Amino acid sequence: MTRDPADERRTVEEHAAIVARMLEPLTEQPATESVPLDHALGRVTAAEVRSEVDLPLFRNSQMDGYAVRAADVRSAPVALEVSGDIPAGHASPVSLIPGTALRIMTGAPVPTGADAIVPVEDTELVLGRDDDLSGAVVEIRRPRKRGEYVRERGSDLRRGEVLVEAGTRLAPRHLAALAAAGVETVTVRARLRVGILTSGTELVTGSTPAFGQVYDANGIALAALVEEAGATVSMRASSSDDPAAFERILDDALHSSDLVITSGGISRGAYEVVREVLHPHGADVTTVAMQPGGPQATAVIGGVPVFAFPGNPVSTQVSFTVFLRGPLRAAAGLPAVQPMEATLTHRVVSVPGRRQFLRGRLDGDGGVAPASGPSSHLVAGMAQADVLIDIPTDTEVLDEGAAVTVWTL
Amino acid sequence: MTRDPADERRTVEEHAAIVARMLEPLTEQPATESVPLDHALGRVTAAEVRSEVDLPLFRNSQMDGYAVRAADVRSAPVALEVSGDIPAGHASPVSLIPGTALRIMTGAPVPTGADAIVPVEDTELVLGRDDDLSGAVVEIRRPRKRGEYVRERGSDLRRGEVLVEAGTRLAPRHLAALAAAGVETVTVRARLRVGILTSGTELVTGSTPAFGQVYDANGIALAALVEEAGATVSMRASSSDDPAAFERILDDALHSSDLVITSGGISRGAYEVVREVLHPHGADVTTVAMQPGGPQATAVIGGVPVFAFPGNPVSTQVSFTVFLRGPLRAAAGLPAVQPMEATLTHRVVSVPGRRQFLRGRLDGDGGVAPASGPSSHLVAGMAQADVLIDIPTDTEVLDEGAAVTVWTL
Repeated sequence: MTRDPADERRTVEEHAAIVARMLEPLTEQPATESVPLDHALGRVTAAEVRSEVDLPLFRNSQMDGYAVRAADVRSAPVALEVSGDIPAGHASPVSLIPGTALRIMTGAPVPTGADAIVPVEDTELVLGRDDDLSGAVVEIRRPRKRGEYVRERGSDLRRGEVLVEAGTRLAPRHLAALAAAGVETVTVRARLRVGILTSGTELVTGSTPAFGQVYDANGIALAALVEEAGATVSMRASSSDDPAAFERILDDALHSSDLVITSGGISRGAYEVVREVLHPHGADVTTVAMQPGGPQATAVIGGVPVFAFPGNPVSTQVSFTVFLRGPLRAAAGLPAVQPMEATLTHRVVSVPGRRQFLRGRLDGDGGVAPASGPSSHLVAGMAQADVLIDIPTDTEVLDEGAAVTVWTL
Repeated sequence: MTRDPADERRTVEEHAAIVARMLEPLTEQPATESVPLDHALGRVTAAEVRSEVDLPLFRNSQMDGYAVRAADVRSAPVALEVSGDIPAGHASPVSLIPGTALRIMTGAPVPTGADAIVPVEDTELVLGRDDDLSGAVVEIRRPRKRGEYVRERGSDLRRGEVLVEAGTRLAPRHLAALAAAGVETVTVRARLRVGILTSGTELVTGSTPAFGQVYDANGIALAALVEEAGATVSMRASSSDDPAAFERILDDALHSSDLVITSGGISRGAYEVVREVLHPHGADVTTVAMQPGGPQATAVIGGVPVFAFPGNPVSTQVSFTVFLRGPLRAAAGLPAVQPMEATLTHRVVSVPGRRQFLRGRLDGDGGVAPASGPSSHLVAGMAQADVLIDIPTDTEVLDEGAAVTVWTL
């Protein structure tokens, strides 16, 4: 068994920088797509959206009540003839005869000549009925000033003004504003298409493992991590340790994806299929000074970046979280996950020379405890964690009460 | 125009309690459904999931290297005959001949009789080749203790132990653990099915508004709010102010939904279609001492709760946020949105007797400023907000620097 020529351990920061640089073409100039408003919740706008209309579209009433000339109700109470009725959705412009009132509903266009709305609460029909306004007379009980309860056209937003800024993650209130302005589709950042390949003759999915086999946990974990990071899974497949089989699914993945993630097959063993297949493509196979997740490889094949993570389930998930979550979230326009400070509630030991990412559980009170052992096969243990505890490279022991950086999972 | 007999204003807390009580049958005993793991990301488990298997499934190697008896490598360096090879996924149990070593890959079953793994880094083949182990001899350079680099069966989780607790929002790490244990489907809380009906002859969708008409912003806003709160939209429709038309879509919604939300048509005007249709069903039509969102109605029709919100776009969104977001999130098993404290960066005036929910924008530094005016038609203004500023009922003025409660939108 020969040693890798490039056997110096790379730091996490160095490898993260390499990964980020490989993704630069995808993150610096993200692709865009146009989606109907109904499918735009949570998507991130690729450009600002300016309104093509004034909002409100027309001068309208803020209240159910009566449209009047303020001059006619200066000395309330005063009785005015009701010269008509303007329901919301009324189809043609109406004029107010001076000295009269027009009944008006909230949102209905304010008639020409009217300059104030008297809310129905401040009125009483002294002649006529709600359902028959012919010959009706309304008593206006309170004087109103010009403009009261009138929503001027464009008072919310003028045509040409920005409805939604570029880079906005679309929430319900943004969709409401876009819909109100008649916008039907919006240009958003396209989701990066990620191919996910797990390798290992020992992996089974959908059947009961024979002796020596295990269920594939990495395919679903990576798929879910990719989705959480705002990308989409273009393809997901598993192969044995047979290079021809792996090459086949890799080829499919390269054709359908913006980037490809693999798990397994890159350490120093004898059946390292991913390493073997990536090698002729000039793969950068390295060991990062971290635990779990040390063995890492990257390649660019036909312009498509490939990230090869080690196959232990915890290593795979930690590798994604440390190296890909940030760039993928950035590409999707999602905010970065910020590190937090916490206090160790238990003493931990670490391996000097490796930055260790322990699985930890916050206690809701600023404290964090390891959620399981450090070993990278503890997939059930990792399910108990909610953070990674970031133990610096040159640490052997951290005592209870020590301050640590934690990363939300 | 007659006054409503129950015209006393209800407080926000009182109305919220009524809404919560109406939803109790749905929130206290939430329906469940079984979903495949691939569709379970973000869903909330309805029951704990216990493992039917030990994890790991079998005793296996933590490293690529050689399986040995610790007793045989007590005084390293020592040369051992390589008596065979165990790749990962190897299909039948193997025994170790005492005094020899078996090459083993990470994850492969540890042979009977072996009790330690020597990592490949600590070995050298002194006879034979990696690709031809016949007659090979390996030099073990470091002694190993019993159990080193051996992952015992069940050392992660034992059969019958809890994999995922009830009420867990399924993240990638949970899906990985479930998959590793061979779980294929998981029982989660069913999403509440919500029917959304917007009313108003003035509303148009998908065509250009004629004079006096406006685009419907409430349908999409409510649909998005419902989805964000962990429920699903069973039906979305819009009707004119014609009672027969509204009754028709209401009937459809009642048949396909766990609850129904309507917007518009419940104030004191002359064409209040929702109010008119709900009235014979014993609707509770009320005015809540809040702004926006004062006019509110509720009904239970054929066992289905109906919540009627006022139709101004800001009123609709604020009503949902104040009254339905909490109960729907609780029903979905999502954490409550917690109020935060912020400092006003501008003076605000309010209407005594009404709790006001101003649209506000956080400045990232603990400060909050109103994002638009208080009027409930400012749908574009609301898109600029990220919080509601909660101005207490009996407040007329709050000066710059005052502490306020804000609710994240």
